[in-house]
Amino acid sequence: MDVYVVLYKNFTSLDAFGPVEVLSRIEELRIKFVSLYGGKVTNTQSLQIETAPLTAIRRDGILVVPGGFGSREVIKDETFIKALTEAGEKSRYVLSVCTGAALVAQTGLLDGCKATTNKKAFSWVAGQRSSVKWDKEARWVSAGKCYTSAGVSAGIDMALGFVQDVFGADQAERISTEMEYHRHRTAVNDSFGV
Amino acid sequence: MDVYVVLYKNFTSLDAFGPVEVLSRIEELRIKFVSLYGGKVTNTQSLQIETAPLTAIRRDGILVVPGGFGSREVIKDETFIKALTEAGEKSRYVLSVCTGAALVAQTGLLDGCKATTNKKAFSWVAGQRSSVKWDKEARWVSAGKCYTSAGVSAGIDMALGFVQDVFGADQAERISTEMEYHRHRTAVNDSFGV
Repeated sequence: MDVYVVLYKNFTSLDAFGPVEVLSRIEELRIKFVSLYGGKVTNTQSLQIETAPLTAIRRDGILVVPGGFGSREVIKDETFIKALTEAGEKSRYVLSVCTGAALVAQTGLLDGCKATTNKKAFSWVAGQRSSVKWDKEARWVSAGKCYTSAGVSAGIDMALGFVQDVFGADQAERISTEMEYHRHRTAVNDSFGV
Repeated sequence: MDVYVVLYKNFTSLDAFGPVEVLSRIEELRIKFVSLYGGKVTNTQSLQIETAPLTAIRRDGILVVPGGFGSREVIKDETFIKALTEAGEKSRYVLSVCTGAALVAQTGLLDGCKATTNKKAFSWVAGQRSSVKWDKEARWVSAGKCYTSAGVSAGIDMALGFVQDVFGADQAERISTEMEYHRHRTAVNDSFGV
């Protein structure tokens, strides 16, 4: 199964690479970086990463949508949201980290569902889509095929929770041990909640 | 001050991007990615990142050396170790994550000092340089200008510890809160220790 990490200008590095580090340790998953048109994507952390076009992804993969200051720009780009909507619809799972939830919300995939985002940007994200049941306290939320997480490092816990749900608890434990990560196993009531 | 993240083929993503995420949130630091000859660096997580040449770094910066399976290859490359040695000598601080400690050890900078690495690869790393006082229990160790951390996610705690030491506790707290990261404040006696 392919994992498509959706990058855009000024995404937050760890929002992407937390889940990437977890998911790349599942043997049957292959990580791929994509962006609206493909090519080089940059961020304020001086990253320059090569990507393939978002429109070229295969069906039934896993979509990972990081957050970052750039989400406030790209959310206004109708072409991007249309491509993300199509990508989300044909994916088996859609995972977002931090303000990436605002982008996934714009696809309509979260309408009527519980979802979360980072707490520092909570009101901005929630204001983007009132038809989502935004949860102010969760570290991450799973709802149907969507997983949404709180800020930055919460994406690691969400990815481990996703691995536990889909690939089993043993795999999640193995990966968190390999990563020497002190895992947060509880999705609800994060201490960063507001 | 410049932060130079030293990449090589098959480095581990989170080893680099954990510290990058922390350090990029200090206003006076600028992140730069470097590799032996510059150009595109790849890893098994499908990353393709543009880098500048390691030999071109300025004095008095912060060197960050991630680990990964590729460290077992690059440690045999005398040209790489020579360039890393020169880079380490002219840097103000040298930080390693995971098996990155084996590479820093080969520069001689850790000789006679305490240092740590990830526990799954402990015997391999310790076997590379017996003149280092390898610590089997620490989450991270600071010794002079060098900071070494345990595996993968421990690099985030080490980077926050480094920020606390150099830029103050308030900055470290601000950053871990922004990242919604449940920080490990204690460098010694990590539960992943052996």
